[in-house]
Amino acid sequence: MKPYNQLSKEELLAAKTDLEAKFKEIQAKNLHLDMSRGKPAAAQLNLSNGMMDVLTSHSDLVGEEGVDCRNYGVLDGIVEAKRLLADMSEVTIDKVIIYGNSSLNVMFDTVSRCMTHGVCGSTPWGKLDKVKFLCPVPGYDRHFGITEYFGIEMINVPMLPTGPDMDMVEKLVSEDEAIKGIWCVPKYSNPQGISYSDDTVRRFARLKPAAKDFRIFWDNAYSIHHLYDNDQDVILELLEECEKAGNPDLVYKFISTSKVSFPGSGVAAVATSPNNLADFKKHMKFQTIGHDKLNQLRHVHFFKDMEGMHAHMRKHAEILRPKFEAVLQVLDRELSGLEIGSWIAPKGGYFISFEALNGCAKAIVAKAAEAGLIMTGAGATYPYGKDPQDSNIRIAPSYPTPEELAVAAEIFVTSVKLVSIDTLLAR
Amino acid sequence: MKPYNQLSKEELLAAKTDLEAKFKEIQAKNLHLDMSRGKPAAAQLNLSNGMMDVLTSHSDLVGEEGVDCRNYGVLDGIVEAKRLLADMSEVTIDKVIIYGNSSLNVMFDTVSRCMTHGVCGSTPWGKLDKVKFLCPVPGYDRHFGITEYFGIEMINVPMLPTGPDMDMVEKLVSEDEAIKGIWCVPKYSNPQGISYSDDTVRRFARLKPAAKDFRIFWDNAYSIHHLYDNDQDVILELLEECEKAGNPDLVYKFISTSKVSFPGSGVAAVATSPNNLADFKKHMKFQTIGHDKLNQLRHVHFFKDMEGMHAHMRKHAEILRPKFEAVLQVLDRELSGLEIGSWIAPKGGYFISFEALNGCAKAIVAKAAEAGLIMTGAGATYPYGKDPQDSNIRIAPSYPTPEELAVAAEIFVTSVKLVSIDTLLAR
Repeated sequence: MKPYNQLSKEELLAAKTDLEAKFKEIQAKNLHLDMSRGKPAAAQLNLSNGMMDVLTSHSDLVGEEGVDCRNYGVLDGIVEAKRLLADMSEVTIDKVIIYGNSSLNVMFDTVSRCMTHGVCGSTPWGKLDKVKFLCPVPGYDRHFGITEYFGIEMINVPMLPTGPDMDMVEKLVSEDEAIKGIWCVPKYSNPQGISYSDDTVRRFARLKPAAKDFRIFWDNAYSIHHLYDNDQDVILELLEECEKAGNPDLVYKFISTSKVSFPGSGVAAVATSPNNLADFKKHMKFQTIGHDKLNQLRHVHFFKDMEGMHAHMRKHAEILRPKFEAVLQVLDRELSGLEIGSWIAPKGGYFISFEALNGCAKAIVAKAAEAGLIMTGAGATYPYGKDPQDSNIRIAPSYPTPEELAVAAEIFVTSVKLVSIDTLLAR
Repeated sequence: MKPYNQLSKEELLAAKTDLEAKFKEIQAKNLHLDMSRGKPAAAQLNLSNGMMDVLTSHSDLVGEEGVDCRNYGVLDGIVEAKRLLADMSEVTIDKVIIYGNSSLNVMFDTVSRCMTHGVCGSTPWGKLDKVKFLCPVPGYDRHFGITEYFGIEMINVPMLPTGPDMDMVEKLVSEDEAIKGIWCVPKYSNPQGISYSDDTVRRFARLKPAAKDFRIFWDNAYSIHHLYDNDQDVILELLEECEKAGNPDLVYKFISTSKVSFPGSGVAAVATSPNNLADFKKHMKFQTIGHDKLNQLRHVHFFKDMEGMHAHMRKHAEILRPKFEAVLQVLDRELSGLEIGSWIAPKGGYFISFEALNGCAKAIVAKAAEAGLIMTGAGATYPYGKDPQDSNIRIAPSYPTPEELAVAAEIFVTSVKLVSIDTLLAR
């Protein structure tokens, strides 16, 4: 089909009439669909139900180092959980701390610690006049929420197909001592599904920040969350690259099993350098006696090792893949060639990111809502909820069924077309 | 027996010779005993092993409000967990938030939040020149650790048999705007086992602090941790008293099941006023998507209700009571009338507090260590680890067996006698 911007006014109006009729038909169905949240579906949760059986009253609840996992103690995690999450983080066991049920919580606490106590002895960020973070956009709203909550100024950095615009990152961090961090989702990024190139990772490792207490907040949320068996992204391991570059303390890596086992009942971890680990633990020893070791043991008994975890993730992929494909199929069929939006078919992660014509995202989300489809609020993928181009929309296909998604995608593309036509007519 | 201070120098020296011989005999046994930590024994943990069986892969893991407890969501806890912990906190369900595995963590986070964001809109404490906390002494080292970590100045307030010296508390908080909080363990206090009198609780409720953002940090750690069936302490419910006194927002109550189910794998909660709850949640919604709902459900299935929890606590008491009595019996038999130390026989909680002659605590703990008995470090029960009188020693009888405790208590009293004699001889 011809690009919309090559249609005459009359052709656009005719298309609009057809689309409005179609939209009314859909509205008449009184649908209630939700593509707003990166939430696993019940079928995915069922995959981990066996985790409820691996520990019983007759189990040996003593860890391999002789720790009674039912009692107090072990600040940084039982050794078998460290081994599993170190493997998942692609680091050695001495570079990992096991936390509670949520890596978001660990990231929040980490920023909070930097505010009150600084980084490895630096001035607490809360005592500085100005603290800034770089935020690759579009990105994860909860990251931006944390920095906004702590009054940290956020600077947008555009995402490229290779990751954040490293020219801009290098320039900004080397010039401005107030820039203390950057939020990254390096693999199957939220929302675009982009995996950082080797060159991007190496440039991160070689950063020369003006601020000695600058840290990369590397949220490897989708490290093993592939959609395909034989077409997977691989990214370089950043800690090792940082060591090679003589920058061993530059990065905090965050990971969790939230979308592997149960969201809310998983296990989170941090992987970082010995200096940084000591800094984390100095704080941690006042904050807690230890996290939930029984849940750590439960995860180890259930997954056994990374092989077990990968096998488990293949089952997740079997459920997720048709959902992504159901949405992508409709996008391809209905929008290809119209030049009113673009998207990337991701090879993993939880989202599809849609780039509409500038100024259309809010209107498209509002339009879709009129037909009973809830999408992530437009703007949510940008700091302060403000998408300067009003163009990005995050699609979360994990929770509905493939059948629901096919209908939801129809509503979505119809909304995209209608709003785009109005925009083109108004030009 | 005659008080030591009425013995002649010769009598003291003779007693010392006997005690030294006895001490050497004990040393020859090469013992390794530990009365340092308020840690439940394995037999107590066994009481909760059934908790490992209540949720299985065939269980309905949906909460009573229809929430799939395996998935994301529910920031402040599932309703059935709220009901249980509200009952445990003696408040209505609308005054409670469910947290993760540790009330210590919640207290830490609460102080941290006050530092970065203030209290209900007040100036963040971290922006003030000086912040102070009142610390009833002797008290809980981990409380003092939190305030010290955040650079909060701690002021000792003596504990009386009725609770903290309220004349002093009232005077200080009404005069000094820098005083922002007080740490309290109101029932079976750590380490003395003192329960606050009704008058003390009412005076707390009627405080008129100079600082509008002053809060009472009410750590009800031993609320249901009685040693006896028919001789239990009851304290007034502070939130209700605060409401009556027109001070509804004055208190944060903390509670957890750490010493009810499994330490480290329990459920924690805060009970406070609607204003304060809103303030907590404003922070929490950036910190986490929600805590471990499966563990919340597990606790509800296991205990059912407060009746079930009380029945469970009676089993704990059956294990703990003989341990406390083993220690108290030796203290009574060996030290009564000597006037070289005093202690309270607690009716609940986890500790016995021993008041030695001034200047003797460190030496007694060191002496006991020579015979293989580890005690809590002297000074630990005071802010900054500094007991100004060097007189308080915390005894934790929960972990060893009653037989071990009888031996440990012998070492302890022998150490007390030897150090006291040296002190009296040096006068």
